Amino acid sequence: MKIKLRQQIEEIVSLTDEEFEWVLSHFEQKAFKKHHLIIQQGDYVQYDYFVAKGLMKAARISPEGKEHIIHFAMENWWITDPEAFHYGTKASLSVDCLEDAIVFSLTLENKEKMCRDLQKMEYFFRKKTTAGYIALQKRIMCFISSNASDRYHHLLEQYPALIQRIPKTMIASYLGVSRETLSRLIPA
Amino acid sequence: MKIKLRQQIEEIVSLTDEEFEWVLSHFEQKAFKKHHLIIQQGDYVQYDYFVAKGLMKAARISPEGKEHIIHFAMENWWITDPEAFHYGTKASLSVDCLEDAIVFSLTLENKEKMCRDLQKMEYFFRKKTTAGYIALQKRIMCFISSNASDRYHHLLEQYPALIQRIPKTMIASYLGVSRETLSRLIPA
Repeated sequence: MKIKLRQQIEEIVSLTDEEFEWVLSHFEQKAFKKHHLIIQQGDYVQYDYFVAKGLMKAARISPEGKEHIIHFAMENWWITDPEAFHYGTKASLSVDCLEDAIVFSLTLENKEKMCRDLQKMEYFFRKKTTAGYIALQKRIMCFISSNASDRYHHLLEQYPALIQRIPKTMIASYLGVSRETLSRLIPA
Repeated sequence: MKIKLRQQIEEIVSLTDEEFEWVLSHFEQKAFKKHHLIIQQGDYVQYDYFVAKGLMKAARISPEGKEHIIHFAMENWWITDPEAFHYGTKASLSVDCLEDAIVFSLTLENKEKMCRDLQKMEYFFRKKTTAGYIALQKRIMCFISSNASDRYHHLLEQYPALIQRIPKTMIASYLGVSRETLSRLIPA
């Protein structure tokens, strides 16, 4: 599994074997079963997670009990409640496993230590965060300028592998449409 | 005006006078008149802009001629087409001045040079980008889980000073609602 983490980093910076072993020592490998809740809304958030295997979702439960999905993460993606993780506030999101999963978890302390002691890692996280920012901005443009049908087809085009692993109800929540609206968009 | 840039950076890292002069040498100070178009959709994007004075907007014009506003920037904010700026692709957004403006512009080459040669600046941009990512994720949560009225009041609460400087039609575009819908939300 650790080869996945290495590939993820080496898409952006190259590391010697020794550097990678040092980087790896800042992470903890963990296995979770399907349905396991790894971040609970309202709790403090200790870790950012790199997903080596499996599929997770981050969502907020509204006071009315409705689930709003903000983010999915499958292999090679990262997931946490970024606000709570970085600012030390209580989680406004829950994260749970939609499949059995293997992750590499990273505390904020270790993330900052890695960035401070090996500038390549600061560069890596800056570039990853920039890419994430650009992806979110495109998603907002989709919300402002597209209807539900366009948003669904955009998602389908961008992440075909993801769509097949996720129940339709969750896709509807991610797109901010009702299950009924989504049904009209998908051929039976 | 350069004090504004220094304050912006020193919110996150402290710089000696010498370091700040070196940082400053990577930027170019420019003045723009109201209505000036600083990034044109379809062109390549040379600069990221730190706004020292004035107000700008970033927007996409749809093939049908409708303007969708993704971002405003007033004093102490940054604005560009981030995808085009970082990846060297053609702009999918235009950026123009809603008021006379003074900016500090930064090329990607100078940004990367600064980050490479002074790790504090790499740290600064990583932290700024992380804060930007968190703000965008909150905005997406607003789109998924709130109606137009909640989105308007959320914006009003977060950026009261901004709202007063922007025509209602543009606020409607930013919120992804029609001008008529917005009118019903705002007391005359």
